[in-house]
Amino acid sequence: MNLLLFAATECRDDNLLTLTGRRLQHLRQVLGSAPGDVIQVGQIDGRIGRGQILAIDQQRAELAITLDREPPPKLPATLLLGLPRPKMLRRILRSAAEFGVSSIHLLNSYRVEKSYWQTPVLTPAMIRDYLLQGLEQARDTVLPPVYLQRRFKPFVEDQLPALIAGREALLAHPGEAPLAALSGSGEYLLVIGPEGGFIPYEVDKLLAAGCRQVSLGPRILRVENAVSSLLGRLL
Amino acid sequence: MNLLLFAATECRDDNLLTLTGRRLQHLRQVLGSAPGDVIQVGQIDGRIGRGQILAIDQQRAELAITLDREPPPKLPATLLLGLPRPKMLRRILRSAAEFGVSSIHLLNSYRVEKSYWQTPVLTPAMIRDYLLQGLEQARDTVLPPVYLQRRFKPFVEDQLPALIAGREALLAHPGEAPLAALSGSGEYLLVIGPEGGFIPYEVDKLLAAGCRQVSLGPRILRVENAVSSLLGRLL
Repeated sequence: MNLLLFAATECRDDNLLTLTGRRLQHLRQVLGSAPGDVIQVGQIDGRIGRGQILAIDQQRAELAITLDREPPPKLPATLLLGLPRPKMLRRILRSAAEFGVSSIHLLNSYRVEKSYWQTPVLTPAMIRDYLLQGLEQARDTVLPPVYLQRRFKPFVEDQLPALIAGREALLAHPGEAPLAALSGSGEYLLVIGPEGGFIPYEVDKLLAAGCRQVSLGPRILRVENAVSSLLGRLL
Repeated sequence: MNLLLFAATECRDDNLLTLTGRRLQHLRQVLGSAPGDVIQVGQIDGRIGRGQILAIDQQRAELAITLDREPPPKLPATLLLGLPRPKMLRRILRSAAEFGVSSIHLLNSYRVEKSYWQTPVLTPAMIRDYLLQGLEQARDTVLPPVYLQRRFKPFVEDQLPALIAGREALLAHPGEAPLAALSGSGEYLLVIGPEGGFIPYEVDKLLAAGCRQVSLGPRILRVENAVSSLLGRLL
């Protein structure tokens, strides 16, 4: 945790914050914080600043908060992913927030197992929790919205063209077209299939909607490494 | 497992391979293999080809092996990493092999906890096992060598300059110098510190040995995401 995050509703009297639970444990056990210490804090979806510890014991910590700067800019990238298996989904949500993606769409596909849509990882509270872990790591405050697209064809036919408008949409899929360097000035939609990839019907639909197919090389990367390979090019 | 790997010493009569244990379970439970089926196989540190299943039951599978092509080329990249914590080390070894790095050096540093050097993950058998998992994923056969550099100063002063010769050595460390696109034609040494980063003394030593400092942006990435961001630029 490189940034302690809190919600605006947790603050009293404009700038007093009381911490319990996981964040208190972090202050006590990882940082060994004492009264007078100053740590980096951020208001979720808001600004970043300092928190001075006024008091701390086993039950709670009291901090005085001063917020004085904006979080880092988001990457100009929206992710569209075949819904990964739950274990990988957790890591990808965390990493996507860490890299600073603008928003995330999780898409059904032929090779997505139906049971994946039932995982508790997809409940809003758990999605938020994994995203917050990524933001805490990266020192960001702004949660990327996560959209669940449970029906491939209606989404790709009816919503995807509007999402692509104004963006360069790159479909990472095995093939001949190598991936050139991405420019930091454009807006990107990065599309990555599920384990095993999109089926040819789905690839055709995605290309028809305006995606351009690019290859990540002769190796078969796990989805999470494909994601970070693409996002890493925008840093 | 996208490629079933075996050691040359496991083959009899030139091309017969008997499988038990984990690989047999994979054939039976994941692939549902039957006699006559053909799967992709690779000889560790050798060529890739096909394995035809001659017989399969609960105890063993018999395959006839034909090797007919070379594995994909390695990335032109050597990794030099502050030794990560064991849990992260496992994932990084797997990912580094998956991306196809040429070799890996794990380096001591002020912020590497001494206990990390005692982890069983650093035994040659376990290192090999994690690397093989990455190769199986990527459809590669060639194990990158892994070197343990337990003393920072002697390594950086006496060995690093020779390792850098002929390569572009990039030290990913917070600062002003942004990272431009990496060209696929050069040879790279990619240097990434431990959690918390190299200390200033270590940064100075690395720069004196010939590294160039580059920044991965305003966000603080976990080591594994810093690694895949850099390697992804070479795909």
